[in-house]
Amino acid sequence: MGKKEMKKETGLGLSYKKDENFGEWYSEVVVNSEMIEYYDISGCYILRPWTMTIWEIMHDFFDAEIKKMKVKTCYFPLFVSPGVLQKEKDHIEGFAPEVAWVTKSGESELDIPIAIRPTSETVMYPYYSKWIRGHRDLPLKLNQWCNVVRWEFSHPTPFIRSREFLWQEGHTAFATKTEADAEVLDILELYRQIYEDYLAVPVIKGKKSELEKFAGGLYTTSVEAFIPNTGRGIQGATSHCLGQNFAEMFEITFENEKGEKAMAWQNSWAYSTRTIGVMVMVHGDDKGLMLPPKVATVQVIVVPVPFKDADTQSILDACSDTVKKLTEAGFRVEADLRDNYSPGWKYSHWEMKGVPLRIEIGPKDLAKNQVRAVRRDNSTKVDLPMANLAEKVRDMLNDIQKSLFNAAKEKRDACIKVAKTWDEFEVEKDVKTRTKGEMGAAKTLCSPFDQLELPEGTLCFASGKLAKKWSYWGRSLVLLHISINPTSI
Amino acid sequence: MGKKEMKKETGLGLSYKKDENFGEWYSEVVVNSEMIEYYDISGCYILRPWTMTIWEIMHDFFDAEIKKMKVKTCYFPLFVSPGVLQKEKDHIEGFAPEVAWVTKSGESELDIPIAIRPTSETVMYPYYSKWIRGHRDLPLKLNQWCNVVRWEFSHPTPFIRSREFLWQEGHTAFATKTEADAEVLDILELYRQIYEDYLAVPVIKGKKSELEKFAGGLYTTSVEAFIPNTGRGIQGATSHCLGQNFAEMFEITFENEKGEKAMAWQNSWAYSTRTIGVMVMVHGDDKGLMLPPKVATVQVIVVPVPFKDADTQSILDACSDTVKKLTEAGFRVEADLRDNYSPGWKYSHWEMKGVPLRIEIGPKDLAKNQVRAVRRDNSTKVDLPMANLAEKVRDMLNDIQKSLFNAAKEKRDACIKVAKTWDEFEVEKDVKTRTKGEMGAAKTLCSPFDQLELPEGTLCFASGKLAKKWSYWGRSLVLLHISINPTSI
Repeated sequence: MGKKEMKKETGLGLSYKKDENFGEWYSEVVVNSEMIEYYDISGCYILRPWTMTIWEIMHDFFDAEIKKMKVKTCYFPLFVSPGVLQKEKDHIEGFAPEVAWVTKSGESELDIPIAIRPTSETVMYPYYSKWIRGHRDLPLKLNQWCNVVRWEFSHPTPFIRSREFLWQEGHTAFATKTEADAEVLDILELYRQIYEDYLAVPVIKGKKSELEKFAGGLYTTSVEAFIPNTGRGIQGATSHCLGQNFAEMFEITFENEKGEKAMAWQNSWAYSTRTIGVMVMVHGDDKGLMLPPKVATVQVIVVPVPFKDADTQSILDACSDTVKKLTEAGFRVEADLRDNYSPGWKYSHWEMKGVPLRIEIGPKDLAKNQVRAVRRDNSTKVDLPMANLAEKVRDMLNDIQKSLFNAAKEKRDACIKVAKTWDEFEVEKDVKTRTKGEMGAAKTLCSPFDQLELPEGTLCFASGKLAKKWSYWGRSLVLLHISINPTSI
Repeated sequence: MGKKEMKKETGLGLSYKKDENFGEWYSEVVVNSEMIEYYDISGCYILRPWTMTIWEIMHDFFDAEIKKMKVKTCYFPLFVSPGVLQKEKDHIEGFAPEVAWVTKSGESELDIPIAIRPTSETVMYPYYSKWIRGHRDLPLKLNQWCNVVRWEFSHPTPFIRSREFLWQEGHTAFATKTEADAEVLDILELYRQIYEDYLAVPVIKGKKSELEKFAGGLYTTSVEAFIPNTGRGIQGATSHCLGQNFAEMFEITFENEKGEKAMAWQNSWAYSTRTIGVMVMVHGDDKGLMLPPKVATVQVIVVPVPFKDADTQSILDACSDTVKKLTEAGFRVEADLRDNYSPGWKYSHWEMKGVPLRIEIGPKDLAKNQVRAVRRDNSTKVDLPMANLAEKVRDMLNDIQKSLFNAAKEKRDACIKVAKTWDEFEVEKDVKTRTKGEMGAAKTLCSPFDQLELPEGTLCFASGKLAKKWSYWGRSLVLLHISINPTSI
């Protein structure tokens, strides 16, 4: 019976607080909210329906948008032969330590070991070379939704760093750099929309430094998010211009309109289930998960509040009617009519699961032909007349979506410090030598496209040379804030 | 330039004929129609957009249907630890020889080898055991869309037998056998709809024999398709009742309404990219692929037919207008306006790719304010007035969808022979001893739910005992027909 009681305790609260034990808090939230189940292989996680709905909603948005851009769906194999994998040297250097190898099938040793894709550039591009012959074959725009494997040995974290994860990877080829450049930004804008409009997570669009760019690419753009409690900047999604480097390695050439041989320009771009982890980290609180309405599996949970002597059946009927009415109006809504849990337990349970809006219906509400609505984000309670309920619920969900974004943005902005000099940047004397310290390495997150004004003569905070632009710096582990600094690189 | 010329030859015809060299014909069709690209690892294939649209259309249908049945989406890891994989003995015996093992990451040997899922029963059910405690946790209905790996050494065939393939796998648990039994058939009906209503492939619903059922399950139902040219019966998709066998192995128990400990009843069901291969085999002809309109990436291809002295621009404009009009009416339609290919080349090209309807627009059509429509399935040509084009196109596409199904059904039915006696069954004296012969083994396909009348006293064609039912028999390799026989087993 011990097991049964554990089950009942789900949703009754967290052992850890977000501000005090962030890592433990996060693990507890993703498990107790029923997003994740830990698996018996380290670094692999079970994605439960509460997670997959979010993934599907983002998929439906993004997939429709890229289809408008004439991107087509494909599926390339999970496996790569070693020769092909190693063709692009910089690229493989970036991934080799994390590649998982299949060496056996049944009881038989394979003739050569076969790699599992960590990403699919080298899987795909030999065939781009085959398919692209003339300028009419361009642009070639393909995307696949798949799993990839990176057998990392550093501390695994659900969604954020897992050995297998789900993503989309787009791979496109163009006749000109101009077209490739334009697509990099179009895709980046879709990634911004996923974070800001769906997950209510503010991001900064910008360009990665040479050190941080994609292995083998020309330049990398990204959306960078920020986790207030850890002060950690986190790469949200990347849109790479690969230039002509892979085209050269894989001989992706075409006959241009003048009949000359030319080399293709390529991009690759991806977002993964990491997006969901960032969302949890940004919005969650000490009661559990907090879901933005646009991605919530259940947007509204209806809870009956029967009192002694009340006509319980009428209350249950009113709950079912409310579900019906709101479902017809297009909301994702459920009623929790279980008779073996108290209303209080249910409140905690659905707060833990992050449902944006709770509707309570008790005898008094029934008498007044109203319901009580309680917001997950700020706990405000308001009585809503049954008459125009759908309309009111729509307004409240819209407001919750906006409020979550605004709250996250305020927190983030409060943590961004302008640091014109080394002293302002950090108390540490030398960022590089502190790389191995507890605070983790400071590194550039990106140089934002949306630049502050840079007064003439401003010097780089680090090198003392003339600064060329502002860059965001953050830490990969723990820091109280990210900073924006004038930099010469 | 040799390569360029090869490219141009795509669509100009097949080297093999379906009736003469079925295997070679099939490989050529899936490659030349741009569904498949062969990959440098044997048994792995690249699924190109022309394939993936079909997969997506079926996904959208099936996923929506199972969501109405309250099935939720999940994603379990690709990897299985050996201990868990081997927990159900019958089950693992069925899959062990085909399991791919990861033994290395980067340069390091793993402590224990890790298997890649060939199917996910053993991946999932330890967690079903954890999640299912009381009767309120049932039914538990999960489905995932994913890749699985079966490292088969027999002759690989695109779609039909590949080492990695895409599928959905549904895994459900119920409190009662009655509920499980009902779901098995509900899912089987959806599989029938995929084959018959989408792929225009007639199938027989039935129950597998004990020998052919899923390893470790209670009973297996399937939809069985038939490839006329080879006479081969082919398993289309399966819906298994697992009974309580896995529940016992994985301790999936719950407290029932009376407070007693009870064991769950389980199902699992799957359809894969094999569906697409069956469709190609059934409908394709010596001109190439033939796509049913409901799953065709392009349902209508518009080809301009400019003549000397004709106003080419007006013809091109009429083509674009037609695309616009039909797109707005909800069709998937494209124009092939390339100026470096002749109309005749384009006809062959789009016939190879299986587009159900071609619309040709030339100067005469323009003058008469009409278009010429040519059906892929029977080559009939008809002039359609521009005025109500969308309506006429809808009728024609509906008719093509039906005609493809009817033609396939007629061919199949003509190949089904009633064989009441051993002599009628086959000329061979002993089916079992001929198992290794060139014709391949004869085996039961299924006992159909839709039974013929079985006159009292009918004897089993093989054993001579009293027959209990009719069963379909077919061969795994080559046979001129399948047969339906009275059987005692």
